[in-house]
Amino acid sequence: MQTPWSYRYAHRIQRMGSSVIRELLKLTEQPDIISFAGGLPAPEVFPLEKFREACAYVLEHFGPQSLQYSTTEGHRPLREMIARHTSRFSAEVGADNVLITSGSQQALDFVGRLFVNRGDYIVSESPTYLGALQAWNAYGAQYIPVRADEHGMIVDELEAALRIGPKFIYVLPNFQNPSGSTMSLERRKKLVTIADKYGVPIIEDDPYGQLRYEGEHIPSIVSLDSEYRGPNGGHYSGNVIYLSTFSKLLAPGLRLGWVIAPPEVIQQLVLAKQAADLHTSSFNQYVAYEVAKGGFLDEHVKLIRATYKERRDVMIEMMEELFPAGVTWRKPQGGMFLWSILPEGMDAAEVLKRAIEKKVAFVPGAAFHPTGGGRNTMRLNFSYSAPETIRAGVARLGVTLKELIADS
Amino acid sequence: MQTPWSYRYAHRIQRMGSSVIRELLKLTEQPDIISFAGGLPAPEVFPLEKFREACAYVLEHFGPQSLQYSTTEGHRPLREMIARHTSRFSAEVGADNVLITSGSQQALDFVGRLFVNRGDYIVSESPTYLGALQAWNAYGAQYIPVRADEHGMIVDELEAALRIGPKFIYVLPNFQNPSGSTMSLERRKKLVTIADKYGVPIIEDDPYGQLRYEGEHIPSIVSLDSEYRGPNGGHYSGNVIYLSTFSKLLAPGLRLGWVIAPPEVIQQLVLAKQAADLHTSSFNQYVAYEVAKGGFLDEHVKLIRATYKERRDVMIEMMEELFPAGVTWRKPQGGMFLWSILPEGMDAAEVLKRAIEKKVAFVPGAAFHPTGGGRNTMRLNFSYSAPETIRAGVARLGVTLKELIADS
Repeated sequence: MQTPWSYRYAHRIQRMGSSVIRELLKLTEQPDIISFAGGLPAPEVFPLEKFREACAYVLEHFGPQSLQYSTTEGHRPLREMIARHTSRFSAEVGADNVLITSGSQQALDFVGRLFVNRGDYIVSESPTYLGALQAWNAYGAQYIPVRADEHGMIVDELEAALRIGPKFIYVLPNFQNPSGSTMSLERRKKLVTIADKYGVPIIEDDPYGQLRYEGEHIPSIVSLDSEYRGPNGGHYSGNVIYLSTFSKLLAPGLRLGWVIAPPEVIQQLVLAKQAADLHTSSFNQYVAYEVAKGGFLDEHVKLIRATYKERRDVMIEMMEELFPAGVTWRKPQGGMFLWSILPEGMDAAEVLKRAIEKKVAFVPGAAFHPTGGGRNTMRLNFSYSAPETIRAGVARLGVTLKELIADS
Repeated sequence: MQTPWSYRYAHRIQRMGSSVIRELLKLTEQPDIISFAGGLPAPEVFPLEKFREACAYVLEHFGPQSLQYSTTEGHRPLREMIARHTSRFSAEVGADNVLITSGSQQALDFVGRLFVNRGDYIVSESPTYLGALQAWNAYGAQYIPVRADEHGMIVDELEAALRIGPKFIYVLPNFQNPSGSTMSLERRKKLVTIADKYGVPIIEDDPYGQLRYEGEHIPSIVSLDSEYRGPNGGHYSGNVIYLSTFSKLLAPGLRLGWVIAPPEVIQQLVLAKQAADLHTSSFNQYVAYEVAKGGFLDEHVKLIRATYKERRDVMIEMMEELFPAGVTWRKPQGGMFLWSILPEGMDAAEVLKRAIEKKVAFVPGAAFHPTGGGRNTMRLNFSYSAPETIRAGVARLGVTLKELIADS
């Protein structure tokens, strides 16, 4: 007889839906669709020659070690490099504050594993990153959304949320996915002190921090928390868990991310990682270290910034020209996404259906809202498509929007 | 004030201990210790030149794709290759039966995620693989151990265990870690029919199946289950979830494993993987495919077999010569581990303490027993150390054992 599998699954499985974005990505794999739906880096900026050199160098000089099992914490030189890099931006961080993960998504999963009992509350911006919701839904999380504007989470509304007793506060301060907004320095400082007052940890998710196209760099929340606490002998032991990744600086196909956290939290994360996948690919860690070690990333990031800035500007220019009145958007200072707001009452999911007929795609914003709302919002990615493709895609989207507004 | 992190952790964290083996590996990193403790492949057999060629080829021909985000299911050509490889051994398997994982440990974690509610029972051999216990303890599993001998799980004792209502049966039929025993064909067939009778799925963990040094290949449980159910149009839809890995055939540092399961189970595992790490390194999947595609692995595995067979034989030869009377062991037909039984009442953990003073290490067997017992057992790895090192290590261990037996 057939095995009735679905009756054997654990409770948590009933909470796991497929990512709307990833399902859409499948739909939009048809080559004639222009997709602003995904969050892919531009493949043109991958440093292929650097990778070629690094792979050859690693296999020649560290062949057997780079292919062998290694420590769960991650490749020591890479952890030290990340600690130095982070300390450069004023946080006091040592290698024992660093865990290498198999991409940033794994770090989000581990945060859920570590903290979330079924029914626990998490404070987040609304909208917020879908991948985090997906990771934490599997652990039975509930959400307390705090409103956000173009300067990020409205921190004045945070205290009411903290009095509910959440496990942690989740924020993406730089060029947020999906809204593109950046949290102001003033709000970051206030967030650090309010979180400290209530004793609630902060999860700072920062995949795009270095992809800034205009304005001044704003210190990370972990570095502000480090300053707030004062010198601590080179080892961070504050209230923030910081996540970042090589996916946007180097290449996502390597699946390399990292966590900065107090050493006692890192030790717990190491136990979680032992059970989850033993360790992240040794070879990829050696290669990433070779590519990054000579200061190459600082140079490389300039190329990425120039490429994405042009694409952002082209997208905005075309939207100004071709989108109908009543559709608005925010200009992000960096990152990969543009957030657009349709007239009240319009449903972005309906827009998407019509848009796909016209061979252009984006992600309707509702999915990013942990407790509902945002049906009239949409997220457009500008990093992946070449400028000419962006022009053509925004034109198709403009026609779609004009038709729908005329119909209504 | 300091954040009191430990009070914020979820219930499941209290169940997570560090792996005894991995903690020991740290202890035995001192270069003068001969370690039979880990489960590392011999670095001498890593095909460095093949990797060098494959990395260069992949970057030249598939550069951007190999570094980009990719599908959660895994690289299609690799999944097709694994399906063909599995079908060669008589199971009917298609690419939609295959999920690529970040090593076999991740597959074990996903099995826990998919099936285990807190308190659920799992039937396993006793002793069994520590990494599986570690993965499933995090989900609150309980165990029903079934005795095993040199022919694997004693299947006649299985029915009593199944009447308790376990979620699944976990077996390592080939050269089991830690005991080295191999399940007979007769028992495999009986296992398939009993599991079917009770409707309880089987998790077949097979990292070492191709590392056989003597005797005939015995069909995998998934292929016996496939035969038992009859033709099914090239897509397996039976009662077995099969796990394997490139770690022992190619290199563990790539973190590449795979799952064979009915398509509906693969679809659920894909959702789990989306939340856990999006997908396994695209680059590593391209590289592994290039290394393996021309039938290279079949040739390469001959080298691994010859190397490990020699090491196994050297270890046994030395044990026969130098171990005191009363200490026994099983000769494994393949794999990487030798299981040794000390006289009743002797504690392998005490032996280890003395052994480390004499600069040799192994893993005490108690940790592999899910519900206790096995204090007088030890696991010795023979794949990692060169023959000369094995000779020296067994000599040190022989002296340790003789001294302890004389003392008692």
